[in-house]
Amino acid sequence: MTAPSERVRLGRKPERGSHDPEVLQAILRAGLVCHLGIVVDGQPYVIPTLYGVAGDTVYVHASSGSRTARVAAAGAPVCLTVTLIDALVLARSGFHHSANYRSVVVLGTCREVVDEAEKVRGLEVITDHLVPSRWATLRPPTAKELAATTVLALPLAEASAKIRDAGVGDEPEDVDPAVWAGLIPLQTVGGPPQPDDVTAVPPPPHVAGWVPPSARTVGP
Amino acid sequence: MTAPSERVRLGRKPERGSHDPEVLQAILRAGLVCHLGIVVDGQPYVIPTLYGVAGDTVYVHASSGSRTARVAAAGAPVCLTVTLIDALVLARSGFHHSANYRSVVVLGTCREVVDEAEKVRGLEVITDHLVPSRWATLRPPTAKELAATTVLALPLAEASAKIRDAGVGDEPEDVDPAVWAGLIPLQTVGGPPQPDDVTAVPPPPHVAGWVPPSARTVGP
Repeated sequence: MTAPSERVRLGRKPERGSHDPEVLQAILRAGLVCHLGIVVDGQPYVIPTLYGVAGDTVYVHASSGSRTARVAAAGAPVCLTVTLIDALVLARSGFHHSANYRSVVVLGTCREVVDEAEKVRGLEVITDHLVPSRWATLRPPTAKELAATTVLALPLAEASAKIRDAGVGDEPEDVDPAVWAGLIPLQTVGGPPQPDDVTAVPPPPHVAGWVPPSARTVGP
Repeated sequence: MTAPSERVRLGRKPERGSHDPEVLQAILRAGLVCHLGIVVDGQPYVIPTLYGVAGDTVYVHASSGSRTARVAAAGAPVCLTVTLIDALVLARSGFHHSANYRSVVVLGTCREVVDEAEKVRGLEVITDHLVPSRWATLRPPTAKELAATTVLALPLAEASAKIRDAGVGDEPEDVDPAVWAGLIPLQTVGGPPQPDDVTAVPPPPHVAGWVPPSARTVGP
């Protein structure tokens, strides 16, 4: 599949790249947090934030007074990146040390969501990305809460994925059975849920059975 | 401690912020990957990359031919962000759902490391950040490998940390013992090391005893 724009064409190691919507979706659904880049006075700022995906749209939210919300809502160009590190690759030279990873880079401009129904839906998508089925158990947001929150919609139109999923790539002359080389797999795991002091009920299934996005077989 | 510049002064929730060098160092030593932001033609790009820290310097490396290496080495402004997500915070309203996290944002311009000794040292720092004690077991990099790699040094002079490490912050009127609220702790863990087909030795201590940066008690 060809790149939707020259800006997201992969310059380095294009064999690791993809613009397949299914690949993009799978990585976005497996990620936990995104890093949103904006530019202010020529200076880039990269801010970690929670997100969710619905169809061809990535939703993020921010406090309405925040600079990120103001800049992105005003239509400034943004870059939204999601990264999963799946393994460390230990080679027999420093040069070939690497990581197995899956990442998605989305370029574009955000649309501020002003329609109330879509705004609530965006917040649901973000919340249920973290904890599937959580939103339906909560009271609806108040008008004051909605006013305090900016929801931004970023289309997946200009995006690329990059994946390394391979073993050790040593130089032939370095290959030596006496030197340990291989992968150290990595994953994010959840610990036992910790109820607050007020909670007097056992964890519901969406809490007791919570697994990280990367371990879910079907997206929320 | 006051902010070293207005650009890294925290606008939102300043009570979560810090400019204490020990706090910055601890978070940088606990992170696995950073996200590096650059600007090209007004468009931000946010790229995940490996890094290491030595004193007041963050080292990153890139393929010498890559755009990121060229732009950053030319002295363009960058933003380097490291994020750890420690827990999901499940409140009794969508609005108060959150995450416990530790993040560091570093602004500045990179210095391309041209001195060979410092360049090798930078690569050692990056490699040993991932796998402490690994570098000393490897052959030295060749001149060709060094030429193919750009090492960038970013000073920690203009940086801020932001931390949320707290429980559920519900509105008083939402507090209800019948609704489960609390934290789901998260951590990155390593699985059993997977030797490649050539390896004929057991994993050395730095592999068998590997723990993620976030679980190390002392930095590399």
